[in-house]
Amino acid sequence: MKELGGGVEIVLAPPYTEIRRVVEEVTGSGVRVFAQHADPVEPGAVTGFMPLEGLKEAGVSGVILNHSEHRLKLADINSLVKKAAKLGLETLVCADEPETGAAVAALEPNYVAVEPPELIGTGISVSKAKPEVIIRSVELIRRVNSRVVILTGAGITDGQDVYSAIRYGTSGVLVASAIVKAKDPYSVIRDMAVSALKAVTGQ
Amino acid sequence: MKELGGGVEIVLAPPYTEIRRVVEEVTGSGVRVFAQHADPVEPGAVTGFMPLEGLKEAGVSGVILNHSEHRLKLADINSLVKKAAKLGLETLVCADEPETGAAVAALEPNYVAVEPPELIGTGISVSKAKPEVIIRSVELIRRVNSRVVILTGAGITDGQDVYSAIRYGTSGVLVASAIVKAKDPYSVIRDMAVSALKAVTGQ
Amino acid sequence: MKELGGGVEIVLAPPYTEIRRVVEEVTGSGVRVFAQHADPVEPGAVTGFMPLEGLKEAGVSGVILNHSEHRLKLADINSLVKKAAKLGLETLVCADEPETGAAVAALEPNYVAVEPPELIGTGISVSKAKPEVIIRSVELIRRVNSRVVILTGAGITDGQDVYSAIRYGTSGVLVASAIVKAKDPYSVIRDMAVSALKAVTGQ
Amino acid sequence: MKELGGGVEIVLAPPYTEIRRVVEEVTGSGVRVFAQHADPVEPGAVTGFMPLEGLKEAGVSGVILNHSEHRLKLADINSLVKKAAKLGLETLVCADEPETGAAVAALEPNYVAVEPPELIGTGISVSKAKPEVIIRSVELIRRVNSRVVILTGAGITDGQDVYSAIRYGTSGVLVASAIVKAKDPYSVIRDMAVSALKAVTGQ
Repeated sequence: MKELGGGVEIVLAPPYTEIRRVVEEVTGSGVRVFAQHADPVEPGAVTGFMPLEGLKEAGVSGVILNHSEHRLKLADINSLVKKAAKLGLETLVCADEPETGAAVAALEPNYVAVEPPELIGTGISVSKAKPEVIIRSVELIRRVNSRVVILTGAGITDGQDVYSAIRYGTSGVLVASAIVKAKDPYSVIRDMAVSALKAVTGQ
Repeated sequence: MKELGGGVEIVLAPPYTEIRRVVEEVTGSGVRVFAQHADPVEPGAVTGFMPLEGLKEAGVSGVILNHSEHRLKLADINSLVKKAAKLGLETLVCADEPETGAAVAALEPNYVAVEPPELIGTGISVSKAKPEVIIRSVELIRRVNSRVVILTGAGITDGQDVYSAIRYGTSGVLVASAIVKAKDPYSVIRDMAVSALKAVTGQ
Repeated sequence: MKELGGGVEIVLAPPYTEIRRVVEEVTGSGVRVFAQHADPVEPGAVTGFMPLEGLKEAGVSGVILNHSEHRLKLADINSLVKKAAKLGLETLVCADEPETGAAVAALEPNYVAVEPPELIGTGISVSKAKPEVIIRSVELIRRVNSRVVILTGAGITDGQDVYSAIRYGTSGVLVASAIVKAKDPYSVIRDMAVSALKAVTGQ
Repeated sequence: MKELGGGVEIVLAPPYTEIRRVVEEVTGSGVRVFAQHADPVEPGAVTGFMPLEGLKEAGVSGVILNHSEHRLKLADINSLVKKAAKLGLETLVCADEPETGAAVAALEPNYVAVEPPELIGTGISVSKAKPEVIIRSVELIRRVNSRVVILTGAGITDGQDVYSAIRYGTSGVLVASAIVKAKDPYSVIRDMAVSALKAVTGQ
C-alpha cells in the first residue's frame, strides 16, 4: 500500500492463533495488528482466556473490545481500556448504537466504532442504509469526548461505502466479510483505502 | 415516615419472589418498589428469566440495572433502559467508578449510582473512605447528562454517611447491609432519612 | 383433577414473581409448584439472583435446572442438585440429548427430562417426530441410574403425545406452549392427564 | 524424554497465541499439543472466539474442555466432544468431583480429569490430601464408561504425587503451577515422567 503515501492506516485483527504469524508478516510494512478481543483477567491461572499481557507479548499494538459478536460487561470494558493504556496498547471499543457509542467514549479509549448489529455481514452498508446512525453517533460521541477517533461499520462493501462513512464525519471503517469472503481481498482493501484517502483529502 | 413531610423518597428493592408482597404492603405509603435486576429478554420462552414486562405486572415502579453483584453487558443496559422508559418504569443504573458512571449517564436512565465495589458490604462508607469518588462522579456525570439523579453507595452505615454523600453533591444513597442486618432496621432507615432531609435543606 | 384419583402428578412452574400466589392457590389440591430455575449462589449479597433458599421460603417443593432456555454449567448443576437435596427440594434437570440426559442422571437428581431443543415450542412433538430420542434416552439413562424418574418434552401438544411418551418408557412430560397458549388450558391439561393415566394403567 | 522409551505420553497445553510455536517446536518429538479450551461456536462471524476448526488448523491434536478456570455448560461440552471426534481431535474433559467426572464420562470423551478446585495451584496434592476423591472418581466413572482414560490433578507437585495418583487407579495427571513456576521445569517434568513409568510398570 506504499502508493497511498502513508495517508491511510490499515489495522488487521486475526484470530488469536494467527496473531504471531500476521505480526511477523506485516513487520516493517506500516500495517499494524490488533487482537479481536481480550478477556478481563490477570495473567496466571486463567486457562483458555487471553489477558492483555499475553496479547502484547504476541506482538499486537492494540485490541478490539466489545465487538458485536463478543459483548463485554461495562465494568470490564472500563478496566480493560485503563489497563491497555498502562501496557501501551491501543483500544478500539465497539458499540451498537449512538448512545452506547457515547457511553464507551466516556471511558477514553483510542477508537470508538459504532456498528448497527442488524447490518453486520449483510452487505447492506450502514453508510447507505442508516447514514443517520453515523451522523448521530458523531454528534453524541463528540459531546462526551473531543479526541477519540470515531469509526463506523456494518455491511461496508466497497470504496463508496468507506467514502460516505468518512464524509458523514467518521475517520474510517471496520470491515470483515467484504474482505475475508472476497475473491481478491487485496483489490477490495485497495479500493477502500484509495476511497478513504479521497474522502479525507476532500476529492 | 410521615414526619418527613414527603421530603425524602424511599424505594425498596426486594428479591423477585417477595415483590408482590412488598408492593401490597407499601401501597398508599408513598414508598415505592424497584426490582433488583431485569434480564435482557422479551416475554415468552425465557424460562427462569425476568423480563421487564413481568416485573411491571408484579407491581414495581422501576428497576435496578447493572448492580455490582449483577453486572450487565453495555448493549443490554442500553436496551433495558430504553424499553423500561417505554413501559413507564424508572431505571437506576449502577456503576463501579466515576468513568463508568459517566458512561451509563449517556444512556439517559433516571438514576445513576456510583458504588466502589471494594467498599460494598464493608461498613466502611464511600462518604468517609473515598469522598473523591463521589466528587469526581458528580463532575464526570454532569458533563454528560445534566438531568440524571446521582446517587452513591457502598458501605453506607448511618445518617452521617448519608448527610456527607448529599453534601458532596449526590441526591441520595443505595444501602443494603446496614439496614438488612440491623437489629432495628426501622430506626436505621429513619436516621438516614432524617439526615438526608437535613442535608437537602442545608441544616 | 380429583377424578384422576391421584394417579397423575401435576407440577406447575410459574415465573419467580408469581410463585407465592400460585403456591397459595394450589395448597391442598395435590398440585405442587417448582421454580423455573435457581442460581448457583448462596443467600446474601446476590442482588437479582435467586438462591435455592429463597425459592424454598417462597413455598416451592422443587426446582427445574438447566432448562433449554437457561442452561447451566455442569459443576453448577451438580452443586445445586446436592444443595437442593439437603434443603428438602426436589430437582428436575433438563437435557438436550440422550447423552446429556445420562450425564445429568449421574448427578442423582429426582427427575431427568430430555427435550430436543429444535422441537421446543414448535407443536411438533418429540413423541411423533423423534421417538428414537425418547427410547435412546431411557436406555442411556438407565445404564447410569436405575431410580431417577425420566420425563421427556418438546412440542408436546395433546394427550396422544403424552400417551406415546409414556409408552416409549418415560414417566411423563414437560409442557409449556400447548397449555399456556391454549384457549382453554384446563381442558388441555385434563386431556393430557387422562391420557397419562391410560398409558400408565396400560389401557 | 527419549530415555522413557515411549512409555509416558506428554501433552502440552499452551495459550492460544503460542500454539503454533509450540507445535513447531515439538514436531517429531512424540510430545503432543492440546488447546486449553474451545468455544462452542462454528467458524465464521465469531470475533475473538476460538472454534475447534481454528485450533485444528493451528496444529493441536486435542483440546481441554471445562477446565476448572473455564467451566462450560453441559450441552456445550457434549456438542464440542462430538464435533471434536468428527474433526479427529481428542478431548480431555475436566470435572470438579467424582459425580461430575461420571457425568462427563457419559459423553464419551477420550480423557476425563477430576480435579478438586480447592487444591488447584496450592501445592497440596490431591494424591496426598484427598486420595478418596481419586478412588471414588475411578469407581463412579468406570460404572458409566469402561474405556475413557482417567486422569487426576490439583496441587500435583512432584513425582511422588504422580506415582500415587497412578497407583490409586488413574492413568496420569494434569499439572500446571508445579512446572510453570519451577526454576528448572525440565527436571520437574522428568521426575514426574520417571515416577509415572515406575507406577505403571509396578516398580
